Amino acid sequence: MSELLKGKPVADAILARTREGAAAFYKKKGRSPKAAIIRVGARPDDLAYERGIKNRAAQTDVEIDVEELAEDVSREELLRTIKRRNEDAATDGILLFLPLPDHLDEQEAVNAISPQKDLDGVSDASKLGVYTDSGIGNPPCTAQAVMEILAYYKVPLSGKKAVVIGRSQVVGKPLAMLLLKQNATVTICHSKTHDLSQETRQADILISAAGRIGMVTGTDVRDGQTVIDVGINFDSAGKMKGDVLYEEVADKVDCLTPVPGGVGSVTTAVLLSHLLH
Amino acid sequence: MSELLKGKPVADAILARTREGAAAFYKKKGRSPKAAIIRVGARPDDLAYERGIKNRAAQTDVEIDVEELAEDVSREELLRTIKRRNEDAATDGILLFLPLPDHLDEQEAVNAISPQKDLDGVSDASKLGVYTDSGIGNPPCTAQAVMEILAYYKVPLSGKKAVVIGRSQVVGKPLAMLLLKQNATVTICHSKTHDLSQETRQADILISAAGRIGMVTGTDVRDGQTVIDVGINFDSAGKMKGDVLYEEVADKVDCLTPVPGGVGSVTTAVLLSHLLH
Repeated sequence: MSELLKGKPVADAILARTREGAAAFYKKKGRSPKAAIIRVGARPDDLAYERGIKNRAAQTDVEIDVEELAEDVSREELLRTIKRRNEDAATDGILLFLPLPDHLDEQEAVNAISPQKDLDGVSDASKLGVYTDSGIGNPPCTAQAVMEILAYYKVPLSGKKAVVIGRSQVVGKPLAMLLLKQNATVTICHSKTHDLSQETRQADILISAAGRIGMVTGTDVRDGQTVIDVGINFDSAGKMKGDVLYEEVADKVDCLTPVPGGVGSVTTAVLLSHLLH
Repeated sequence: MSELLKGKPVADAILARTREGAAAFYKKKGRSPKAAIIRVGARPDDLAYERGIKNRAAQTDVEIDVEELAEDVSREELLRTIKRRNEDAATDGILLFLPLPDHLDEQEAVNAISPQKDLDGVSDASKLGVYTDSGIGNPPCTAQAVMEILAYYKVPLSGKKAVVIGRSQVVGKPLAMLLLKQNATVTICHSKTHDLSQETRQADILISAAGRIGMVTGTDVRDGQTVIDVGINFDSAGKMKGDVLYEEVADKVDCLTPVPGGVGSVTTAVLLSHLLH
């Protein structure tokens, strides 16, 4: 049986760090750090995410302001709201819930967020920061959550072979860049990869961000590996499942993140920690 | 003996394409496309590069203007020159020779170049364009020269395994992004990679951009491979050498680019082709 790399202690450590940072911030500025959530409409998953953030924030002495905009908000009002928060000295970070309704231009909206306040690394400036390692902006929270888990559990990366399944702008590509920065040898696999098992079996660290149940099976892994499951999928019974077939993989590899309770449980803590970046 | 993937026919094909583009451009606008070279000082290697560009340009009905600035030009005058060329409707592309003298801020200068006119993909906007595949700006010429060689010689990429040695912002990283876009499975190796030979021997396409003579030896390759040598190094006798030990590698692999006469001979043609992007 492999070691389970649970997200909770990682999240707790990030939250403790953030709480300390928030206390130092308060001492210096006489107020708590504050994040603005900009939510268009009231989709149930947005509301659930918002509740999660508020719960975490309460543990870290971080303030959350929610700007609730109507489902049919105009482009101009959305941009005005973002601009106001960019310019507000008492707002330290901005999180725009995505996706936006179809009538709004998502690219335009995310790029309106000041890179200094871009909590989820969605703006072009943040993307460029990850690609060029300039320190500007933030990496996407999910990609950084993976790095936080690896760091917390002291998984060595320098000179090791990391294989990433998925090449999205939100997880796969930024993760490859972050792993490269830590001196891992990085392979990026995707739907067109010829012999995926051969690639994945060579990994010291295997990270699946494909978004498909059963992407990683028992034949794709071997002992000695650390497997990070970024997938959040739902089976026909509505049960949350990762990309990794847990029953087949857990007995073979050294370490594995569960789903739920793995990467997903760390992202909100990472988001709040970005307030103090 | 492997097939030699010479740069000349690739460059010729790009130049022919560019000449056609320039003719269509002339027909539409009543003038030839024009590139501005901005050169600070008169370093011998800059002058040699400039001569090369002018020779190529003469073959393609493309105009070259050289802005020669004094070695001790002020920051303000350099930025003014770039801005003037950005705004000049009769200048279609800008190439700023690098490195700049120490008293100038290179980052600031390259980012002053409008992405639409950024012939060598040096600005942040061009880098972001490569990373996010947005189509804005241009990839760095050397990285694109590699892709042009692979395309010209019809080397299949989709689903194939490409291994890149080097993670620089100028070659390694953008090349990885361009290969990924063509659906290759991409591995990025570097100085910290644990067992380089094991990585390189698995490649269908091996690209060395390490800048070190002998980076790729006979034990690093196998038959069936295409090897692209991006290195431009000089041995103790002053002779130009690639990263690949030609004598050891040429007999083992299927295809190999020579140095000189390989990638380096394609970059200037790529540069001019960017005028018509």
